[in-house]
Amino acid sequence: MKQRQYVVIMAGGGGTRLWPHSRRSRPKQFLPMLPGGESLLAATVRRTRAVVPIQNTLVVTTASQVPEVRRCLPELPVDNILVEPVGRNTAPCIGLAALTVERRDPAGVMAVLPSDHFVEDEAAFARLLGHALVIADRGYVVTLGVRPTHPETGYGYIQLDSPLVPPAIGQPPSPTDDWADSEYLAAAFVEKPTRERAVEYLASGSYLWNSGMFFFPARRILEELRHHLPALGRLLDELRHHPEHIAARYAEAPPISIDYAVMEKLGANTAGADAAIRVLVGDFGWNDVGSFAAVGALTQSDEQGNHVLGATRAPSPPILVDARDNIVWSSSGQVISAIGVEGLVIAVTEDAVLVLPQGRAQDVREIVTQLQKDGRGELL
Amino acid sequence: MKQRQYVVIMAGGGGTRLWPHSRRSRPKQFLPMLPGGESLLAATVRRTRAVVPIQNTLVVTTASQVPEVRRCLPELPVDNILVEPVGRNTAPCIGLAALTVERRDPAGVMAVLPSDHFVEDEAAFARLLGHALVIADRGYVVTLGVRPTHPETGYGYIQLDSPLVPPAIGQPPSPTDDWADSEYLAAAFVEKPTRERAVEYLASGSYLWNSGMFFFPARRILEELRHHLPALGRLLDELRHHPEHIAARYAEAPPISIDYAVMEKLGANTAGADAAIRVLVGDFGWNDVGSFAAVGALTQSDEQGNHVLGATRAPSPPILVDARDNIVWSSSGQVISAIGVEGLVIAVTEDAVLVLPQGRAQDVREIVTQLQKDGRGELL
Repeated sequence: MKQRQYVVIMAGGGGTRLWPHSRRSRPKQFLPMLPGGESLLAATVRRTRAVVPIQNTLVVTTASQVPEVRRCLPELPVDNILVEPVGRNTAPCIGLAALTVERRDPAGVMAVLPSDHFVEDEAAFARLLGHALVIADRGYVVTLGVRPTHPETGYGYIQLDSPLVPPAIGQPPSPTDDWADSEYLAAAFVEKPTRERAVEYLASGSYLWNSGMFFFPARRILEELRHHLPALGRLLDELRHHPEHIAARYAEAPPISIDYAVMEKLGANTAGADAAIRVLVGDFGWNDVGSFAAVGALTQSDEQGNHVLGATRAPSPPILVDARDNIVWSSSGQVISAIGVEGLVIAVTEDAVLVLPQGRAQDVREIVTQLQKDGRGELL
Repeated sequence: MKQRQYVVIMAGGGGTRLWPHSRRSRPKQFLPMLPGGESLLAATVRRTRAVVPIQNTLVVTTASQVPEVRRCLPELPVDNILVEPVGRNTAPCIGLAALTVERRDPAGVMAVLPSDHFVEDEAAFARLLGHALVIADRGYVVTLGVRPTHPETGYGYIQLDSPLVPPAIGQPPSPTDDWADSEYLAAAFVEKPTRERAVEYLASGSYLWNSGMFFFPARRILEELRHHLPALGRLLDELRHHPEHIAARYAEAPPISIDYAVMEKLGANTAGADAAIRVLVGDFGWNDVGSFAAVGALTQSDEQGNHVLGATRAPSPPILVDARDNIVWSSSGQVISAIGVEGLVIAVTEDAVLVLPQGRAQDVREIVTQLQKDGRGELL
């Protein structure tokens, strides 16, 4: 069965939430932000290779980012890079990848993973990845829900049709916890909640973070897309027979997320257990690296709680005097130093410096907006 | 009388209190930190030229800093640059300058000024400079004491033999205040006080900040040096007749400050009013730019109290979002940005970044110490 397992990594996204490090042309999955200068994309493939060989790993990206993909993944066969002519959100991207998997193996089963997330416990992740592919191979749509550790408002949630058996969400798990190896059925996919609602979700024991990781047979997801998004289904059926039309026709794909196009519908499905989404519960120190507030988790801190990110080109490591719980991330050759500061992000690149408290991490967009207003788009 | 007035600017000092901007090889008097990129040295000469022509302005510096002096002061006659072979504190430096003034005019009277201080009210300064030179021309040793505005512990103080007539120190002056045009006699020069003592000084109305600006006939200060520091007096007498010996002999000069060598002794003088130091009271927005906490005064702030220093090479001015009372000083080409921070110093050069609260400005030395320990002296 191993041979028909595929991993599809979506690496086409852009973004400036980690500006000045992340740029439109070089989003966060390509940045050397992990220890030793590893990128999130390279770490993602390193994790999946423990389960699925790199020959069965496909990376979907845009033409302009192919060089970054090859730089981060020198061992990836070049035929395994799928190029989207334009970005059209995740449903068309996954449909395109499913066509490729189906062509290679009509019984192919695929894991669809973001390229830019962080996983702390790699062994736990590998175990769940293998488990999820086995269940998907039975024909199911499977997702990994992440056991919430706090009432996060930055993630979507998956409501389970029954609460986890003890311990409740928010308590530390034990190796014998039933939930750790159980499948649940999804009752609903829900959007990013208010703070108040996130607190309720955490307390209920019935909600997991939506990790954006999905598992299904290629054939099954193509059927679902045909059913729930007929316009995309028709386009994909044409591209199956005429892959040479991708460049000319892909832009016609409706720019819709897989969550909205398929998952929310299946999650609300009352047609019975066979149609419903299977949920496995992940508890592996996951985060989506969605803002500077999240990047501290990517490295060990020093004794004062300071996190230093990425490969440094500076002649000295950062000099931090009486400084606590800061995140220092530089890709410039400058020596970075700080005295008596707490909870700050100090982000430095060759062309920009940004200083902000971690609690203001969401407001990086205001700098980006200002740069656009000032006509300095080349900095984005 | 104009022709025998000279200005001597001491520009040989080094320092790293404003690191990473100030370096051993490029101390703060040469940095383009004022609006338009003007240096403190250039601003000092611009202020004195309102009173004394540049032909009568002497700048004392070290050989390695001559290029910086010429760059900052392109109109200064090259013969007016006096080179100290080695730094030997202010008493020998002033003695050397006094020899030059005396050679040019045996009746010459000189103002001795630091090159690296800030003056906000330039007209008030010019008026006092002219006044002080007139009094000095009568044979007196004169100093400018600065009316304290707060209990500063970073300055030495001059105790007056009588308190200022109203208003008391710490109150805003009016144009008719007697003290503004009066001479006082110095009772004592005192070292940097404790906080508690500084509060007493401020309340007493009898203490002024020691500005380090002095005025005297060249002949008089040479007499004082001969009397109070005979070793230096003998050396200067030799150098008067053999200026070609300066390179070989200057290092023998005792490295003592003019305050310690002469002023403290004259201040404590009980020999009568002729010997005592005359003090004029300055109230012109002075500070010695001794730390990052002081540099905010050098520029107007924006509406949120942020000060942006120096000529910027960046493609955009700093982008400050919801940021208050910060000091941003960059000489690099990077865009500097900050969100939601207050009271910080963000100092950026081509090779270093430093972030600290203004209240920790004295602790820059800890970074310098660390760099020395790390063997990164090239950054100092």
